[in-house]
Order: sequence, then structure tokens, then C-alpha cells
Amino acid sequence: MLPIGKNAKQGKRGILERLDAGEIVIGDGGFVFALEKRGYVKAGPWTPEATVEHPEAVRQLHREFLRAGSNVLQTFTFYASEDKLENRGNYVAEKISVSKTVLERQNKLINFKRVLHTSGEIKLTDSMFTQCQTVNEAACDIAREVANQGDALVAGGVSQTPSYLSCKDKTEVKAVFQKQLEVFVKKNVDFLIAEYFEHVEEAVWAVEVLKESGKPVAATMCIGPEGDMHGVSPGQCAVQLVKAGASIVGVNCHFDPEISIETVRLMKEGLQAAKLKAHLMCQPLAFHTPDCGKQGFIDLPEFPFGLEPRIATRWDIQKYARKAYDLGIRFIGGCCGFEPYHIRAIAEELAPERGFLPEASEKHGSWGDNLSMHTKPWVRARARKEYWENLKPASGRPYCPCMSKPDGWGVTKGAKELMQQKEATTEQQLKDLFHKKKF
Amino acid sequence: MLPIGKNAKQGKRGILERLDAGEIVIGDGGFVFALEKRGYVKAGPWTPEATVEHPEAVRQLHREFLRAGSNVLQTFTFYASEDKLENRGNYVAEKISVSKTVLERQNKLINFKRVLHTSGEIKLTDSMFTQCQTVNEAACDIAREVANQGDALVAGGVSQTPSYLSCKDKTEVKAVFQKQLEVFVKKNVDFLIAEYFEHVEEAVWAVEVLKESGKPVAATMCIGPEGDMHGVSPGQCAVQLVKAGASIVGVNCHFDPEISIETVRLMKEGLQAAKLKAHLMCQPLAFHTPDCGKQGFIDLPEFPFGLEPRIATRWDIQKYARKAYDLGIRFIGGCCGFEPYHIRAIAEELAPERGFLPEASEKHGSWGDNLSMHTKPWVRARARKEYWENLKPASGRPYCPCMSKPDGWGVTKGAKELMQQKEATTEQQLKDLFHKKKF
Amino acid sequence: MLPIGKNAKQGKRGILERLDAGEIVIGDGGFVFALEKRGYVKAGPWTPEATVEHPEAVRQLHREFLRAGSNVLQTFTFYASEDKLENRGNYVAEKISVSKTVLERQNKLINFKRVLHTSGEIKLTDSMFTQCQTVNEAACDIAREVANQGDALVAGGVSQTPSYLSCKDKTEVKAVFQKQLEVFVKKNVDFLIAEYFEHVEEAVWAVEVLKESGKPVAATMCIGPEGDMHGVSPGQCAVQLVKAGASIVGVNCHFDPEISIETVRLMKEGLQAAKLKAHLMCQPLAFHTPDCGKQGFIDLPEFPFGLEPRIATRWDIQKYARKAYDLGIRFIGGCCGFEPYHIRAIAEELAPERGFLPEASEKHGSWGDNLSMHTKPWVRARARKEYWENLKPASGRPYCPCMSKPDGWGVTKGAKELMQQKEATTEQQLKDLFHKKKF
Amino acid sequence: MLPIGKNAKQGKRGILERLDAGEIVIGDGGFVFALEKRGYVKAGPWTPEATVEHPEAVRQLHREFLRAGSNVLQTFTFYASEDKLENRGNYVAEKISVSKTVLERQNKLINFKRVLHTSGEIKLTDSMFTQCQTVNEAACDIAREVANQGDALVAGGVSQTPSYLSCKDKTEVKAVFQKQLEVFVKKNVDFLIAEYFEHVEEAVWAVEVLKESGKPVAATMCIGPEGDMHGVSPGQCAVQLVKAGASIVGVNCHFDPEISIETVRLMKEGLQAAKLKAHLMCQPLAFHTPDCGKQGFIDLPEFPFGLEPRIATRWDIQKYARKAYDLGIRFIGGCCGFEPYHIRAIAEELAPERGFLPEASEKHGSWGDNLSMHTKPWVRARARKEYWENLKPASGRPYCPCMSKPDGWGVTKGAKELMQQKEATTEQQLKDLFHKKKF
Repeated sequence: MLPIGKNAKQGKRGILERLDAGEIVIGDGGFVFALEKRGYVKAGPWTPEATVEHPEAVRQLHREFLRAGSNVLQTFTFYASEDKLENRGNYVAEKISVSKTVLERQNKLINFKRVLHTSGEIKLTDSMFTQCQTVNEAACDIAREVANQGDALVAGGVSQTPSYLSCKDKTEVKAVFQKQLEVFVKKNVDFLIAEYFEHVEEAVWAVEVLKESGKPVAATMCIGPEGDMHGVSPGQCAVQLVKAGASIVGVNCHFDPEISIETVRLMKEGLQAAKLKAHLMCQPLAFHTPDCGKQGFIDLPEFPFGLEPRIATRWDIQKYARKAYDLGIRFIGGCCGFEPYHIRAIAEELAPERGFLPEASEKHGSWGDNLSMHTKPWVRARARKEYWENLKPASGRPYCPCMSKPDGWGVTKGAKELMQQKEATTEQQLKDLFHKKKF
Repeated sequence: MLPIGKNAKQGKRGILERLDAGEIVIGDGGFVFALEKRGYVKAGPWTPEATVEHPEAVRQLHREFLRAGSNVLQTFTFYASEDKLENRGNYVAEKISVSKTVLERQNKLINFKRVLHTSGEIKLTDSMFTQCQTVNEAACDIAREVANQGDALVAGGVSQTPSYLSCKDKTEVKAVFQKQLEVFVKKNVDFLIAEYFEHVEEAVWAVEVLKESGKPVAATMCIGPEGDMHGVSPGQCAVQLVKAGASIVGVNCHFDPEISIETVRLMKEGLQAAKLKAHLMCQPLAFHTPDCGKQGFIDLPEFPFGLEPRIATRWDIQKYARKAYDLGIRFIGGCCGFEPYHIRAIAEELAPERGFLPEASEKHGSWGDNLSMHTKPWVRARARKEYWENLKPASGRPYCPCMSKPDGWGVTKGAKELMQQKEATTEQQLKDLFHKKKF
Repeated sequence: MLPIGKNAKQGKRGILERLDAGEIVIGDGGFVFALEKRGYVKAGPWTPEATVEHPEAVRQLHREFLRAGSNVLQTFTFYASEDKLENRGNYVAEKISVSKTVLERQNKLINFKRVLHTSGEIKLTDSMFTQCQTVNEAACDIAREVANQGDALVAGGVSQTPSYLSCKDKTEVKAVFQKQLEVFVKKNVDFLIAEYFEHVEEAVWAVEVLKESGKPVAATMCIGPEGDMHGVSPGQCAVQLVKAGASIVGVNCHFDPEISIETVRLMKEGLQAAKLKAHLMCQPLAFHTPDCGKQGFIDLPEFPFGLEPRIATRWDIQKYARKAYDLGIRFIGGCCGFEPYHIRAIAEELAPERGFLPEASEKHGSWGDNLSMHTKPWVRARARKEYWENLKPASGRPYCPCMSKPDGWGVTKGAKELMQQKEATTEQQLKDLFHKKKF
Repeated sequence: MLPIGKNAKQGKRGILERLDAGEIVIGDGGFVFALEKRGYVKAGPWTPEATVEHPEAVRQLHREFLRAGSNVLQTFTFYASEDKLENRGNYVAEKISVSKTVLERQNKLINFKRVLHTSGEIKLTDSMFTQCQTVNEAACDIAREVANQGDALVAGGVSQTPSYLSCKDKTEVKAVFQKQLEVFVKKNVDFLIAEYFEHVEEAVWAVEVLKESGKPVAATMCIGPEGDMHGVSPGQCAVQLVKAGASIVGVNCHFDPEISIETVRLMKEGLQAAKLKAHLMCQPLAFHTPDCGKQGFIDLPEFPFGLEPRIATRWDIQKYARKAYDLGIRFIGGCCGFEPYHIRAIAEELAPERGFLPEASEKHGSWGDNLSMHTKPWVRARARKEYWENLKPASGRPYCPCMSKPDGWGVTKGAKELMQQKEATTEQQLKDLFHKKKF
């Protein structure tokens, strides 16, 4: 058995040093989905104010991913752009970006007291915090604290903005990224990731902004083999991102491991055809999505509250890790649905190549071999690779189908229905939508 | 909208006070499965040494259940009996049995195991704690710490023992429970639960032991409508448990909510027929198990590493909560597979009856209504009850079946293959089992 | 390889002679479903006027069952009772009721309906045949013609009547059976079957009528393990039928082979408990119906035009034949969904016991072994028993579920909605029904 | 309601006259599969000697398709080429191609007596019949006899040969087609179809041979969107077939309706790009095959004895007919799996365009409306289009998956394993194949 990996707490090598040396870098899993289930993120807006409201929950999830084998801890700044934090009635601003004086006066802000209570390290001054700064800075601090306990780097992340969907111009959209970047620079993250972009045009703008920091930039799009929402192919997306300055390109979210690897394969071919070089990265869903259309799992009728039957097993993820490795992808992680044990599955599958197991393998035998300790003999008989490798797990849901027809409204950037608004969606707007959607 | 429930941190009413008053008591979810996925419990032995090794992880999970609405925090002492901690090569003893003095010097339990692991110089003295005491005491302390932050009681729990399966006699088996009870009394838990018993005979012994403490005792069996492993019907099981002294009876684990409710219904009928009174309790799996045999999900080929497609959605759990309530069950919780959001679903479904929502509903709209904040219009169109209530979620796994044939070895207490051993299962023993099992 | 069975065209032994001697008697398959798909029977009324309108089609189907191994050819008189032929707008009378004289002049029944249809000049006289006589007599003639070509007996059959459902009294209902029996006696069928009864009370009346002929009587009910529509258990049903005079009892239609065998098992137990003796008979559906309620496949949403995915394979039927035989059933056939190849599967499975194969096995290798002649090597590799025995056939329908919720209106004899009428269902009646049924 | 179509028994218009006038021509269904289930064709060799052995069965099936609406009756000459009739131990020759004298001497030829017995119309002469002539001539006679009873044309058909697979040269392969053509010319069929070709090269040779007759030629390949076994695209296949002389092109067999229509769409595009004109034809399977690879349903593990769960409903076929029509296909029929009621579904769906219903609609209400005559009210409530149109029929098989992984041996013309042989496959050859196939 391979040794449990020891921590390199000091003198860590940078992301490009590692990848250039051919090392495998293991990403982390999906924060918004995991913390939604733990009770700290609201599905719909999906914003990360938990970094301020419940830092202990965010910290624990980082800790679990580190223990599972992650070499990269992404700051929990997904959708933490200013325009998203106050989109469609998500007035995070009102809760968080207030002066100390205001806070003290406003006893009635129930949640905020907890902020004060649990995160004593945040110092409030008389000058106003912006919500955006507060949330992003807290995210950086927590990620760094945990990263210091092991061999992991901190990556600051930006993602697509409501501003772009609402047709704001390049300058305005870039200003949104710029605000987050200022925090990342101040907090000195190790590198940057522009992730979860449906339009390569916006991703390129993000890379251009991040690149100014001088830090390495990775860029991933949430697309499948059909390409971005404007019809740009994965190969062309990769080429544009590398030309804009990304050292690492790939995909994240929206599709399952199999489809995502196929998309990265197309990116790799595009780069080769253009004689460009970049490291490849893959952070797919841990949900099976064979029935997705162009826009991925958002369109599935089960999104986001009925996806359970699609959750990947650890064995599905081991197969994914192997395929990703075989294609030449070296930055291998996950996105929505990836729990700590899925990340551990990557680390266990690639343990022979890496030479060590993650800490969390202390509690997990390779391919189920700890079942030899089970009380029941027929469960002990499952303590072997060929059993789990070949299992076709039943759903226990004989009244449910295997695949769904995704909603396909065919609208993207520029469509009236995608214009974002600060106010909550009105009853009338909802009624119109219900009517439009044939149930 | 109902208010978020306020915490009753002091002067809490006891479990029987609440139930006698007709109140709904919400249990917590499944620790071993949740912590296995987070990296702190080993599937196979399923023992809870994480209370000593990684208290922060256990504490965080308690916190999440409290926030989700739990009124009962069970000490994480499942399978923490002495005989289980050293069964089949699970030498928890070697890792944890250290002298009190050493522990006092260390002055903190955090990462205790890692300390032990890395600093070989720690000498074990004669004044040994037993592993059992250490693990159980830590569990009590953590549960109490979190319970103090809200309106929850601490319940100390014992469960079935390898000793019983291996045909040890009544005195020996009772001695095992006695050891755990001593800790619970010392730590002054609020009440006791004897749970996860396949044989009512052993459950009765457990109740008899626990009853001596003078604290209220709840007892749940992990059986379905077919009854216990010796063929005693659910109704008869309930009668025997109440006669032994249990004030609350019901089922936990092994079967899905629907089957478990049916089992409790049979218990209720048995009690009525015997003119006995007791409160009813239900803590089922959050896995769909329509295809289980008498012994429940252990026998399913997917147990324990391929159960993902069976995971219940939050809507499944809301339906469960309603049905349980309608049957007259007032202690409603969950077991393996229940994550914090499943417990929240119980609390949200029964919020009209209780008059308030759990804290975690701050991040969750009733029946998906926060989706009205989503960026995409077709997802906003899902912000309504009838959408989620009627959804038949697809598995995304067209190559997998809906139901499985459970392993049915038909062995129980007394069978040679169920004799437990301290040593790890040998290669030869495993080979014999593989051979016996037609793959 | 066993020899193809030779025909015993003369001196055939009667049904009881065979069964008393312990021989296996193979029944035939389902006429109404097979002929509906061939274009000669109308789903809804399901009446057998094809015996007059298209005798060549009926004759060919008899021929195929004989060739497949049937020892019993049932007259195609299902639902040929007078009250059914003119129920709810099914005016078979108008098409077929012609004078005996006319028929005698025509001297052939072939294409009789078309003759009527095209030559308006045929005048109907006062000396009318009833539709009922015409249809039933033609059925007897065709069955006898084909039975003469092999070792098969002709069985005249009656089934449940609209009169009973509409609460007509015993005398009236018995009169309906009496009319059909007169034809069977005149045409001298070999024995009689009272089949497809949902209420044992009506079945007993039918047996009493048939018994008067002095011919052996078999009686099968279309019930499952829950018993008849009035709640009489299968065991009690069997007892009543035997007491009324049936020599052979069992079930037909409504449920799949597995459930039907279970029901016959309960009948067998009932007879044993009552110390009664009778031969057992089973003629189930060739559709998988694990999701049926008490009333069987009629209630399934797929009935009758969407049952295709449930059709049994030949291998399913071989397993059925074996199980039926092992339970002691010796009259083994099929009902709706059973095509000739399903009957052949029974004859092939039980060929070792019977000592010969059916004629149609000339075109079929045991367990697929003729695939050794296939052009493609990977299909040749399927020429073996263990391949087909273990195959779990895929549906090719990933958007469909595996099980359905049956309609459960819970109405039976006596309910207003079950009162039958001569007139077609009106638009308003249909609208009321659509409204009642939640789609 | 539309009238039942009257027969045009005389002065029928030719296939091209009809198609040129924009009329819909309805093909027939699948003979080998239907007759296999009725007991007259052996799966494996799939040869049509039933035309001689059991002409009444072949005649009846033709009659059913005519009644269901077919305008084309294909001679049952599938795989009736000389080389196929004696491939791999299928010694049809021995049974059928013998001189009258020989026949008279050879009393022991059991089957042959039946030939003599049932088909009195075949005159045996002193000169030797070849098996091929006998089978093909009988097929023509039967088809013509039935076609004369309605508005249908007779089409003589040839299909791919073992000779081609075994790498015989162009002259040899063409000679095989030539032999069958001689019969078709002698019997004066109305037009010719070259169907079921996996390689366009062989199909072109067939068209070239058939074209010499001066009769119209249709050509269909059994391919999907990926093209022929040598990688020629559907568009290119269509172009080559039209250039070789085919007036009608399309696909038949191997794939389900949806995939087949997609393939014809590609053919249509190919022809448009090449500025060629031809009528389009589609005769798909009546099995759902979403999981097929390049070579179609032959590779599915369920082929040929476990396909039942994939059988299309009549509603699936109505949707197919509409889609085919909308794409501009005017020769619309079916292949394996198509029973008479499937053909009727085409004729009913397109009845508004054609102005009349097929004869068999006398026994079938549009979209289930005859269910208004059903005894049970909840079945009467199904008498409407939206019910059946939206039904997702359950399989009743919860232990089976929805999709299968096809065998993909990746061998085609020229591969050693595809070399055909006259002798039966030996035990050793089978063993090698079993070994090769991972079960």
C-alpha cells in the first residue's frame, strides 16, 4: 500500500512549476452545491456570502477537500461579483456591506449578529466595506488558512456576470472582474481561475483582466462538445483563451465527466491545430448528464433540486480520473456535485502515478477493501475491485425514467428574458414563465 | 412566511415533556454515511473514533443538523461498543487508548490521532483509558457543546453488538451496553436511544440496561414489515420493547421512508391490540429501497458504495414527513443517507404545525421558490410546488436497472459466517466468500 | 434432439383422461390481442365476429397454435355472449344476424361480412339466426377443422357477462351462458371452459350451467393473489368452483406468469385445506405486470395500446412453464399477449417431460442454437442457453419508466359507472370520464 | 370519419406513376420476424422456404398487410439467394430442390410431403427445380394472388449476399442477383427492390443487375447516419445508387424510425448537393434502438430473441409516419418488427392526406376512440388522442436497463470471421466465439 502523502506546508511550488514538471494537480469539488445541502447557500442566487455569515462551514469544507487530496483550494468567490450579489432581489448588500456604526445601530439584522459572533477576525472600520470586498476578502482568508495546513495552493476565481448577459459593454463587464481581482491581489492568492463561462467572448475579457496581475491564469468554460452559446467550437474557445493569456484551459461544470473529457479533447485538438501550447484542466459535474442539450444540466428538469439519482459514485469518478489522465489532462478536479469523497477517488485512482495516497484514505480502502471488516459475510464478499467496477447501480425508482428532455428555450445573451434586474422577480413575471413552460 | 425559530438555549423541556404535549420532535440525520463521504469514517467497521481524531468534523455536522431543525442531537457513538471497536482488524484501541495524563497534557483533542501517529515518543502508561470510554466521552462533549447553541437535547445511543451475533450470553451482551451507559450517565445526556437492532431479544436487553439509569429510553429496530431476524412481527417487537421500559418505539435505518412508515404502522397496531401506550418514532434511510428483502439495504448489491442513485430528494422527504405525521409519529428524523438538507425538509414540511421554520431555511425557499432569483428564465419557471411535487427525477443512467436482487444468504445470529473475530478477515476467508457469492 | 411430435388425428383421448394420467396439456394463446394486431378484432368491445367475417384469419391463428404445440384449441367465442355483442354501440347484430336460409344459400361463410356489406339486396327474413348463434357456431367449426389436423381437443368457452356487472339476476345471467352452451353441445366440443371471471359468484353460475351438458368443465378466474373483486380469496374461489362441478381450476389473463402461478399456488393450498381434488390450470398474460393492483392489467395506463414494452420473451415463458410444472400445474397455456412462439416455448421447455417437440420447433433451435447459422460471428456467439437465460433485455426507451401506477377507481359490480348500455357511450359521458381521470 | 379505401383491383397505376404524382405509397412490414413468431421461419438463417413449405401462412400475412393499407407487397424472397439458402448448414436445397422423381422416391423427406400436401398449385416436372427457383417462384405467385385482391403492386426483392461478404468478385455476386431476377421477370413483378445492403458497392451491383430488366428499381440500405460499413456517407450512398439507376432510394431495417429518418435526411441532402433527383423511401425497424452503433440492431445483445421490450407502439409509428411525410418521404413502410397493426398506423396517420382509411380500420378507432365501448369506465376514459400521444409506456421490467452496449467486433467484408461456409458451424468454432465474447 502506498503511503499517505505528507504535507508540504512550506516552500510550495507554484501551479505552473508543478504542471510544467508533468505533475498531477488535483482540484477541489463543488462549493455551492455542497454548502446548499449543508444549509449555507441559497439555490437560485447561489452567492457565497457564507464566507462572512458562516466561515466555520466554509472552512470545514476546504479542510475536507484538502484532506481528500486537493492541491488547489479555490476561494469561495463563485458569483461573488457585485452585480450578482444584488441581482433579482438577492440583497446581500443590505446584510453585509454596512459600516460598523450602522451595524451597531441595526440590532434587528438577525443574521448579521451571527457574522459578528462567529467571525471575530473581521475587523469593521468606520469606512464602508462594500459587500463585494467583504465577501471576497473573507473567502481568501479562509482558503489561505486551510491551504497552510497542507500542500495546496489558493486560487482566486471569477465567473460569468449578469452584466454580460444583460448586454453591458466590455468596459463595464471588465470593471466587475477588476473589483474582484483587486481583492485577490491584495490577499496575494497563488494564481487565478476564470471559470464557468458560457460565452468565450466574456471569458476572454476575464482572462485579459486577470492577466494584468502577473499571476498565472487558468480559464475554463462551462460548455460541451457543441461549443459556447454563440456557437464557437471548443477548439476555437481554447485558442482564444490561450491567445488572451491563459496558461491552463479546459472546462468546468454543466456536463458530466464523460462529456467534459470529450470537450477537452476537442480543445486539445484545436490547440494542436493552431500550434498553441497550454495545460489542460477538467472540473466536471458529479452528475450523469447523457441527456443534456447544448446548455448543460441547468436545462434538465431535475436542476437543481432533483439531481440526486444522477450523482456519480466514487467508482464513476475513478474511471473519470483515469480517462482524464490518459488524455493528458493534468489539472483534474470537480465542480457541482463533487463531494470530498469524489475528490479522494481521483487521488486514489492516480495514487500509483503520484506515489502517495491522500490523508482521507486513512478511512478508505482501495476499491472497497475495507469491507473485509464488515459484520455480514455477503458484504465482506464485496471487498474487491471487479465487484465495484462492474456494478450497474439500481435507482430504486421504478416509476422514474432514465433520461429527461431538457428545457430548450434557445435564448442566450441579448434575449429579453435574460435581461437581469435588481428587483425580485414579480408574481406576474413568474406567472408568465409558468405559462410559457409546458409542465 | 413563518418566522425562523428562535433558540431555547436554557430551560429546555425534556423529550417526554415535549412528546406528551403533542409536540413534533425532529431527529437528526445519518452520521456514519455523511462522515464517510467527508473522509472521517471508514465504511466496513463504521466506527466513530472521529470524535477523538477529528472532533471539528463531528462538531460541524452536529451544527448543521441543529441549524436544519434537529431537536435531538445523538451522540456519535454508533458502533462505539468495545467489542465493535476491535472487530475484524479494526484496532481502534491501538490508536486511541492512551492514558488520561497524556490527554490532559495535550490539553486539546484536536487532531489527536495525528499527534499520536507522528510523535512516537508518547508512552502509554498503565493508567489507560479504554478506547471505548475515550470515544464515547468525546462524543458526549461535542454533542452537548452544539446542543447548547440551540433548542436541542442530547441523546446517548447504543446499538447492536458483535457479541450478540457471536452468541455471547445475556450477561456478556448487557455488560457491553453497561460500559457505554456509564459514560452517558457521567456526561449526563438528556435521554437514551437503543437503536439499530435486528433482533428484538437484544434490543430488550439494551432497554433493560438503559432503563436502570432512570432516564427516558427510546428504542428503534432496523426492521421492515416482515419483522426481526427471528421472525418476530413489528407489532410484537413494539410490545416487548414497551414492556421492557421503552417510552418511545419505532424503527431506524435499513429501509426507505415508505417501508419504514408501514413498519411503524404495524407497531402501532400491535401496541393498540396489546392496549399499551408509547410514543412513535421513525428514522429511516434517505435511500429508496423498494427492492429490499427482510434484512434491508445491507443486502442490496449497491451497499454501501453504489447507493447514490437511490438518494432521496428533499421533496421525497417532505412527503415522508407528512405521512409520518399523519400516522401519529411525533419523533421524526432520519438515518443513513440523511444529510442536513433532508432534515430541513422535515422541518419545512411541518413548519405550519410547529409555527416556525428552522434556521437553515434562511437559505431555502419553500418548494423551490428561491429559484425566482435564478438567472435563466426556464429555471425561474420551476419556482413552484406543483413542479417539484410531480417531478419524476431521471437517473441519467440508461444502462442501469431500477431495481436489484438483494443478496439473500439467509443467515442470522448463530450462523457460523456471522461469528465475529478480532483478527482481520484473512485472504482465504475472503476467497471463500467471493466464491460463495455469484457475482 | 427430441423428435418432432407426431399427430394423433384419430382416437384422441379426452382432457380428463390425459390429466388423470399425469400428462402435460398445453393450452393455446390469446386470440383477441393477436387478432387485434392482425386487423380482425376491435379493441374496446373485443368481440369475436371475425369467425364469420374473416374465418381464414381465425383458422390460420388456430393452425399456428396447433403447430406450436397446443393440445387444446379454444373456440374463438370470447365475449361472444349476446349481451356483449350489442353492448355500448357494438352492433354486431346488424352486421351478422341473417336468416338461416340466406346462409344456406351462400353455402360458405368465407368473407361473409363483405358479401353482406356490398350486396344490399340480401333480405333478412323472419327466420333469423341470432348473431350469437352464428358467431359461436362458426367458431366451433373452425376450431374443429384445425383440431382435426393434429392432437388437439376443442374447448368451448364462456366468460363473464355485462349482464352480471349490470346486476341482472342469476336466472338472467345463466340464460346468457345457456345460449352459448346450446351451440357447444350442438357442435359437440370436447370439453368446456368457463374463463375470465372477476367474481367467483358469476363463475359458479357459469360452471353450474356448463355442467349440465355432462362434458368436463374447467374454470379459470382472472384474479391475482388478492382474490376476486368481492374479496373472496383464491383458495376460496377454487373451493367454490370445484364444489360447483369444475374438474380443472386455475387462473387466466389479467396478471403476468409469476403472479398467476402464485395465485394458483394459493388455490392449490385452498383445495388441500378443504380436502378437495382438482387439476390445476394456468393461462396468464404474456405481459410483465409487477405493478398491477387487484384488478390486473386493465388498470395499467398502458392497457391496451401501449403494452409492447411489457411483452414477455420466449425465455420468460420457458421459465414460466418450468415453474408451473414444478408447482404441479398440468394444463399450461396462455392468454392475452401469448403469440404462437410463446406457446412453442412452453412445449420446448417441457419437451423432456413430454418426450417430443412441437412441429414448429422445426424452425427453432432450443435456447437459440440455430444462431450458429447466423452470418455475423458475434451473433453466432449467442447460440447458447446461458446467454439467453441471463439476458436482462433493455427497453430502448430511456425516457420511459419501468413501472406505472394503475388506475384504481375501486368500482366493481353494482357501481353506477359499471352499468352497461346498448347505446354507444355519449360525448357527454366521455367528457365526464376524462374529467374524472387525472391525466 | 374518412371512408374505408376501395380496392383498385384493375388498371393499377405503377409505382413511379404514383410517386411522380405525389401520392403516398405505403409499404409492407417485416416478414421474417413476423413469420418467425408464427413458427415458419428459422432465426439465424432467416431464409424464406416457407413460401414452398407453408404457403398458407405467407399468404395470410400478405393479406393482413394489404388489409392494413400496404400498396406494395414484397415477394417473400429475402435471403432467397442461392448462396444463402445453403449457408452454414442451412440445407434448404436438400429439402426443396429435387426432381419430382426424386421426391416420389424419397418418402422419408418428412417436410416435403407437406409441401406437396399444402401447395397443390406447384407443378413438379421431371427436370430439376433449383431450390432458388422454387422458393422465389412460389413467393411471386403468392404475392400476386393477394395483390390482385386490392390496390397493391408486387415488388421483387434482392438483398445482400454471403458471396459478397466472403469476397467473391463482382461477376460472381452479380450472377447471384441475376438468378433471382430471372424469376421476377418470368413472373412479371411490377417493380424491383434492392434492399438490406450494408455496403453500397454491393447495392450498386444489385441495382445494375435489376436495372437491366427495364422495370423501375428502388434501392435501400440498412445503414444509419454513420453510413455504410466501408464508411461511405448516406449522402454518397444515395448518389451512387441513383447514378446506378435507382429511381427510389432510402433505408430499411437495422435502425429505429427516428434514426432511419435522420439517415434519409442525409441522403436527401446528398442528392440535393449532387443535383440528383429521386424518390425517397423508408422502411425502418419497429424496435427502439437509441443505443445502436454503426451496424444497427444486429449488434444489440437482445438480437434476435430479446427485442420485445423495444417493440414500437402504434402511436410511435404514427409519429414516424408523420415525420417521414414531413421530410418528403413518400414510400413509407416498415421492416423487422412491423406487424400489420403498425402498417395500419401509417395508413391512419396519413389518412387525411390520402383521403381514405385502410380496410383494417374497420376494426380500429383513430387514436383509441373505440375504447369508448369498453366495459370499464377508466378504460373508456382513455379514448382520446392526448392520452395515447403523451403516454410513456412502462416496461414492467424494473430489473432490466433501458439501453444496452452493443457488441462491437468491428469486422466487416473481408474479415476472416465473416467468411461464409456451406457446412454448419462446428462446436469448436462456436467455442472460440463464446470465448471471444465476454458474456
